[in-house]
Parts: sequence; C-alpha cells; structure tokens
Amino acid sequence: MNNNYLGLDAGGTSTRAVVVSSDGRCTGIGKAGSGNPTSAGVDAATAAIRDAVTQAVTSAKAGPVAGAALAVAGAGDPGHRRAIVSALSGLVATEPVFEFDVLAAYFSGTAAPDGYVLLSGTGASAVRVEDGRLAGISDGLGWLLGDVGSGFWLGREVVRAGLAPLDGRGTSTALTGLLLDRLGIAVDERRQGGRTATLVAATAALYAMPPLRLADFAALVFTAAGGGDQVAAGILDEAAAGLAETLAAVRTPEIEGPLVAAGSVLARQPDFAARVAPGAVVATDGLAGAAVLALRHGGVLVDDATYARVTSSLDQLTRV
Amino acid sequence: MNNNYLGLDAGGTSTRAVVVSSDGRCTGIGKAGSGNPTSAGVDAATAAIRDAVTQAVTSAKAGPVAGAALAVAGAGDPGHRRAIVSALSGLVATEPVFEFDVLAAYFSGTAAPDGYVLLSGTGASAVRVEDGRLAGISDGLGWLLGDVGSGFWLGREVVRAGLAPLDGRGTSTALTGLLLDRLGIAVDERRQGGRTATLVAATAALYAMPPLRLADFAALVFTAAGGGDQVAAGILDEAAAGLAETLAAVRTPEIEGPLVAAGSVLARQPDFAARVAPGAVVATDGLAGAAVLALRHGGVLVDDATYARVTSSLDQLTRV
Repeated sequence: MNNNYLGLDAGGTSTRAVVVSSDGRCTGIGKAGSGNPTSAGVDAATAAIRDAVTQAVTSAKAGPVAGAALAVAGAGDPGHRRAIVSALSGLVATEPVFEFDVLAAYFSGTAAPDGYVLLSGTGASAVRVEDGRLAGISDGLGWLLGDVGSGFWLGREVVRAGLAPLDGRGTSTALTGLLLDRLGIAVDERRQGGRTATLVAATAALYAMPPLRLADFAALVFTAAGGGDQVAAGILDEAAAGLAETLAAVRTPEIEGPLVAAGSVLARQPDFAARVAPGAVVATDGLAGAAVLALRHGGVLVDDATYARVTSSLDQLTRV
Repeated sequence: MNNNYLGLDAGGTSTRAVVVSSDGRCTGIGKAGSGNPTSAGVDAATAAIRDAVTQAVTSAKAGPVAGAALAVAGAGDPGHRRAIVSALSGLVATEPVFEFDVLAAYFSGTAAPDGYVLLSGTGASAVRVEDGRLAGISDGLGWLLGDVGSGFWLGREVVRAGLAPLDGRGTSTALTGLLLDRLGIAVDERRQGGRTATLVAATAALYAMPPLRLADFAALVFTAAGGGDQVAAGILDEAAAGLAETLAAVRTPEIEGPLVAAGSVLARQPDFAARVAPGAVVATDGLAGAAVLALRHGGVLVDDATYARVTSSLDQLTRV
C-alpha cells in the first residue's frame, strides 16, 4: 500500500511542509511564516504550522496523511506540542511525532542511519546520529550560554569589534564601516556625554533590536575577511576552532558515517563549511530530511533509491 | 552662609542620599531600594529615590535643601528625569541636576577636578574627568555590545566555560563544580535528548534568569583562579587586558590626575584592582562623590579640607 506521510520543518524564518508517499515521491508542499513558538509566539507559530500543512495536503490532493514527523525548533514545551497536535487534527490520521530539527537537517544531506551533522545557523550544535536517532549532542546551548561559531555568535563579535574603535578601543577594522553602513548611520564626530554621535546612534539602534537579531550581521565578517581584514580573520579563526571542538565532542570511533554541514552560515559560506567540516555534504534545507523522518516513522525503509526520489521530486516541486 | 545640598547615588541595588552643608559636613543620610528606572521600572525607582531623599532631609533636620545632584544609573530618558524631578518638589529648592554615576564614583575617591576613573561593576567603563566634568568615556556600551571585563562579562564567561565540559567541549575546570553548586544542581548523568540531566537543568535555570543576572557568577572566577584553575586564570587575563585597553582609550598626556578604581568587581577584588589599575584609589561607594557633586553644583569650592570633612562625616553617619 502506498501511504502518504507529512514532514514538517519549522524554524524562526519559515515553516515548510511536504507530503511524501511510501515510495519517496513528494507530491505537495506548503510554506508559511515562523513556526518557532519561542520567537513567533505559540499562537502565531501554531497557525503557521497549520497553514503550511494545509497547503501541502491540499496541493498533494491526498486527504489526511497516515502520519507526520514535525521538526519544530523551540517546541520543547509540552503545552506547545499539544497546541500543534490539536491544530493538525483532521489533517493527520495518527498522532504526529516530534523530532529534533537538527535531525531533519542531517537527513537532508544523507539517507545513512549513522553519521554526524554540524549545524551553524542562528545557533550552533553538533549531533551524532545512530540508527536514525539523535544519540549525542554538543553545544546548542543558545545565544547566551553557548552556540559558539553560530550566526548569533559571529554577529555579536562583528558588532563588538566594529564598535570598539569608535571609542578608541580595539584594533581598527573594516567591520566598523560595514556595520555603520548596514545600520544606515553616518559618521558624526560631535560629542554627546563623552561619546561621538555615531557611537550613541549605533548603540541605540542595536539595543532596539531583539538580541538574536545580531545574527543578521554575521555575513559582514566574511565580507571583511575576504578583503583581508585581520580582525575579521581572527573572529573566523575563533569560530572555526569552536565549531571544530563542538564536532569533536560528539565524534566516536564506533560511528564513521557521513558528515552533514547545515544551517544558514555553513550553507551560505561553502569555503568556511569546507574548513570546519572537511568532506561534509552541505544541506541547504531541512525539508527533505523532514520527509525522510516521516517515512522512517511510518516504517518505510529509506534506501538510497527512495532517498534519491525524495530529493529529486522535492527539487521539482520547489522549482515550480 | 552655610547652605545644605543633597547628593544622590541611585543604582541597581540601592539608592542612597546624603545632605551635606557648604563646609563639607554630612548631616543626614537615607537609603532605599533600586533607583535604576531600567531595572526597577520608572515608578518603583522614582519612589525609592523620593524615599531615600526624604529620609536624608528628615534626619538632617534641614528643611528643603538649596540644590541637588542626582547620579542615577539608567536615567538617560527625559521622561524618567521629569518624573524624578517632580517627585522631589518640596524637598529641593532649585531644579536638581543629573550627573553621570561614574562621576559620583570618581569623586568618592578624590577631590581632584582632573583625573580618571576605571569602573567594573555590573558594567564596565573608563572616564576622563576634566574640570570636574566628564570629558571622555570608553566602553560602558552595555552587556550585549561591550562592558569588557565587567561583572556581567566575567559571569557570562564563568557560565560558558563551566557548562562546556558538561557536553564534552572546552577544558576541564573548577568553574563547573562551583557553578552547579551555586545553582543547587546535583550531577545526574541520565540523558534527555542527547544531553545529561545536569546540563538540561543548568541551562533551564540560567535561561530563567534575566541575562544581567549572570553577573552574580562573576565572583566564582576569582575563587577558581585563587585555587590555581587555569581556565579561570585565562578569563581573568582577558578581562584585565580588556579593562587596561578601556582605560588606555581615555588617557591623554595633558591630564595626569589621580586614578580611581570603582564598581563592585574592583572594590571587592583589591588584587585584581591593583593589577588593572595600578596605584588607583579604590572607591567602594558613590555617595561621597554625590555629595561632592552637589557642593560643586552649588558653587562650593571642594578643597582637600572640605573633601576630608565630607568623607569623615559621612563615615561617621554610615557607621551609626
């Protein structure tokens, strides 16, 4: 029998859902806004998840799917989970299972049941996968306590190093000009309470953002380092060392397996990904992995042929 | 004529007020809760300020004072300032002036109109004082963007370095045990989603606090470093280098002047203060400085004799 399953990957930027049949063919997709209850709020996140799933099921002309695997960043709380399950009643025939989003990232890069994924997006973590399940995780402790080498970590370093020379600290760096350009702040040397107007305006603009938005400045470190800036190069050295340590912490000799590099930082910076995760497959999207997780939970063996069908059919659907 | 003036030093922990006469004699003091509008809220902070001032004026048996200098951390907003001025009507005969709290810290260490103060409390900054006024400031950019070497900065490093070994990263350090003890979390190696129960409980407890509360863990780095811990020693090296850079950024050859070390970190850690600010006078309290600022704004020349009376009479009042 050829059942339909639903895979969902919900993150801070967008929520995506896919309907996949037992043979690995993706037949419908849906997309909505942030499905992360922490950043978007429980109600908005739940609505986005329902919206994406409804689109996927409707476009697949599938009726209720047999089962669903939901990779929802930040949905650790049982209350969040109940709200999501309740919102999907009528769309999924059996109780959906929740999965770690980092596992969806892993299976977007490989069908192998054993291996590793190194993720650097807004956060950063490394995971060891055994028999298709999360067997060990390092870092991923969040913006305040960990996430070394993540987009937030890089963005905060960019901002700190870029601001320092504005009051005579640190080393002169191209990051200062790049940061001010990005903030749309012109240089104004007039002083307010001992600081330049430039610095006062920049700090006011930065504190007006939620802390996590500092991740938006991560890309500037690659621009500056590419132009030969030594401060930026130093930040990247430290990030690379931190990510290498995070990956090393989950490595075990018993598991050889493939290595997947995932998350917006690694997906957008192939040279940096090659440096911190040599030989890794770079996964740009967690949706294929969510489909694989849905199939696995449905009892479908995802061999290389099935996996190839998942990725190629999904590729066609998203290209339309 | 021997006028009375009011000095006020309002911070995140407590608000203190002092009535001082033109000849430098402190005749009344008052104390209340947090007067920082950012951390306590405008209404509670304003009430605390009024409370402390009322106590000081009442205990001085002075009637309304001729003028007041208010050093209120976080009162940059004109709305906050208006609320405070309005709450003090009837207690102060003329419009109170607002001063930088770091200037109150400076004048708690010296009467010299020209000099420097290096502050490391919850935040960190350095200030150059010229003719009794703030002439230049470096860092003090707040917990997210700067404050290198501050209590928050140290506390965050303690927490990050202490947590890292719990998932196999970083270097083994005494900070881990000290941190878990402080959090009241017992070691529990059972795994939840790839992490030990210890790590899950610790991160949950830490994220339940406001970020600034990480400053509470700063003292652990001195405990661990004192016991020979190399990770803690490395954190202190970095903090010392950052504070030295912050101080160097406001130094100018034209101003020799004394150096005052202030803030809870430097006041409580005399060895560390001596390392980052050699030869500095350590000021443990901003209240004497607030009295000096009030006298200066009243047009009183604060010479060494007057300054000695301020500190000795204040010392007697607080000892009672």
